[in-house]
Amino acid sequence: MSLLVIGSVAYDSVKTPFGVADDILGGSATYFSVSASYFTDVSLVAVVGEDFRKEDIEVFNNRNINIEGLEKRKGKTFRWKGEYGFDLNEAHTLDTQLNVFADFNPKLPEKYRDCEYVFLANIDPDLQREVLSQIKKPKLIACDTMNFWIERKFDSLKKTFEKVDIVIINEGELRELAGEPNLVKAAQKVLSWGPKRLIAKRGEYGALMFSDSTVFSAPAFPLESVFDPTGAGDSFAGGFMGYISNANNTDESAVRQAIIFGSAMASFNVEDFSLNRLKNLSYKEIEERFKEFKSLTHFDDLI
Amino acid sequence: MSLLVIGSVAYDSVKTPFGVADDILGGSATYFSVSASYFTDVSLVAVVGEDFRKEDIEVFNNRNINIEGLEKRKGKTFRWKGEYGFDLNEAHTLDTQLNVFADFNPKLPEKYRDCEYVFLANIDPDLQREVLSQIKKPKLIACDTMNFWIERKFDSLKKTFEKVDIVIINEGELRELAGEPNLVKAAQKVLSWGPKRLIAKRGEYGALMFSDSTVFSAPAFPLESVFDPTGAGDSFAGGFMGYISNANNTDESAVRQAIIFGSAMASFNVEDFSLNRLKNLSYKEIEERFKEFKSLTHFDDLI
Repeated sequence: MSLLVIGSVAYDSVKTPFGVADDILGGSATYFSVSASYFTDVSLVAVVGEDFRKEDIEVFNNRNINIEGLEKRKGKTFRWKGEYGFDLNEAHTLDTQLNVFADFNPKLPEKYRDCEYVFLANIDPDLQREVLSQIKKPKLIACDTMNFWIERKFDSLKKTFEKVDIVIINEGELRELAGEPNLVKAAQKVLSWGPKRLIAKRGEYGALMFSDSTVFSAPAFPLESVFDPTGAGDSFAGGFMGYISNANNTDESAVRQAIIFGSAMASFNVEDFSLNRLKNLSYKEIEERFKEFKSLTHFDDLI
Repeated sequence: MSLLVIGSVAYDSVKTPFGVADDILGGSATYFSVSASYFTDVSLVAVVGEDFRKEDIEVFNNRNINIEGLEKRKGKTFRWKGEYGFDLNEAHTLDTQLNVFADFNPKLPEKYRDCEYVFLANIDPDLQREVLSQIKKPKLIACDTMNFWIERKFDSLKKTFEKVDIVIINEGELRELAGEPNLVKAAQKVLSWGPKRLIAKRGEYGALMFSDSTVFSAPAFPLESVFDPTGAGDSFAGGFMGYISNANNTDESAVRQAIIFGSAMASFNVEDFSLNRLKNLSYKEIEERFKEFKSLTHFDDLI
């Protein structure tokens, strides 16, 4: 099945305790689409400026990502500058320049309107619904968001949530969104607004998925070197939605496996700056890591 | 097999966002022994003052805990006062009064010297080794510690670690102990000092167990109401060591199951102040929670 993502394609400048990199390829739709491309056909909707480099277009082409919906406009590509301390769970944003992203109003190419699986990455919730309205018959819709929209566009965000099946969100933002410090209660509150499932991303602690009757806990992969956590959440979402889209199955078992694939993709992504690790994987490596997640979490039943 | 614990028996004053309680029964050896008592025979070594209440002695008696080694001395029982914010992962110590604990120098009752499983709770590492030297043939020794000893008695602590099989420690203290922000590297460093296994406790994020060749990740149980986290780590250690002691087995499978039992006991403990929940459990409830941990973490293999 075909998977559509709308989000940002960006140039990031990132500082971690392990190094510095300027103007490197990033953005939620970038991480998502490259990650998902190992599982399924991906169509991307985003906007870049005239400064967008040819070699970065090749990153998408090499992964056979459909970029018919990647608009090129006068002006500069969206830029984000951030820093991480030794607590790699939290990014400190130093600068954001929306540039061409400021008045982005996406029109989906005709072919995109048949996509059945949709991921609305972290953008203005009005825009999330605008894109959604252009898709003919979405089968499964997931979305992300962030504190910026929770604080400024709460009502619009709630309207988006009424239309989506799965919310994928950081645990801190989930607590803020629900106004509730307890994660279980916060998840139940957001589920009461419409979504069937909610996935709380917990950085180096993994992810928790809630439905009205089940909870699933997945760890993050314990790595000896986490180089740059930028894009981990979107790589997670890409692996998750990519697997589901390919399986064309949303039962509990498939969705749990999808979370493990998402976690595997996030674990690869943090091993290097930008897409450096993510763009050069083999499916065999990904399956290997899936198996390592199994041995990481397995314990025997009682006799 | 018989399990010995040396640690504190205390009166705690605790404030959480959900309530306040003064002079309630607490202490590492208390939480540990009551938790372990659901699995095996427990012998306790600790000291209390003249103010120790009869009804609190009954807590141990009701769980058939051997308190021959609970010394009663002139003076007041050890007291700890602490507070938690909405981030229940971190206790803020407001006051510590060592009282009779200040010059505690335990002599083990003769019967205790045959114990094969030993838990050295968080006390002066000199004292940990002093107790250890009185045990004839320990089969498996585990210990805990805290930042206080890491900062003041690092060399002594390292000597204790050389003698123990399993270190059970908070993840923040593990990082401090190893001088290494990456948890995997920190664990490897501490394992190089002697212990065969290391368990990093991560509060509401569960636990990670490391050996030289394996890693096991266990989540914490997602609870709708965490009332008071005091004693969660010692309840965890009690369930863990209690199960191992009863199984008399330290292979990978048994130790992983023990971690789940430990996590189950910790999850019960945080549901109420003091030992209020922990002292009134049935083994059936504990097994039920073990099974809930299975459905919380299980995902199917790839076909």
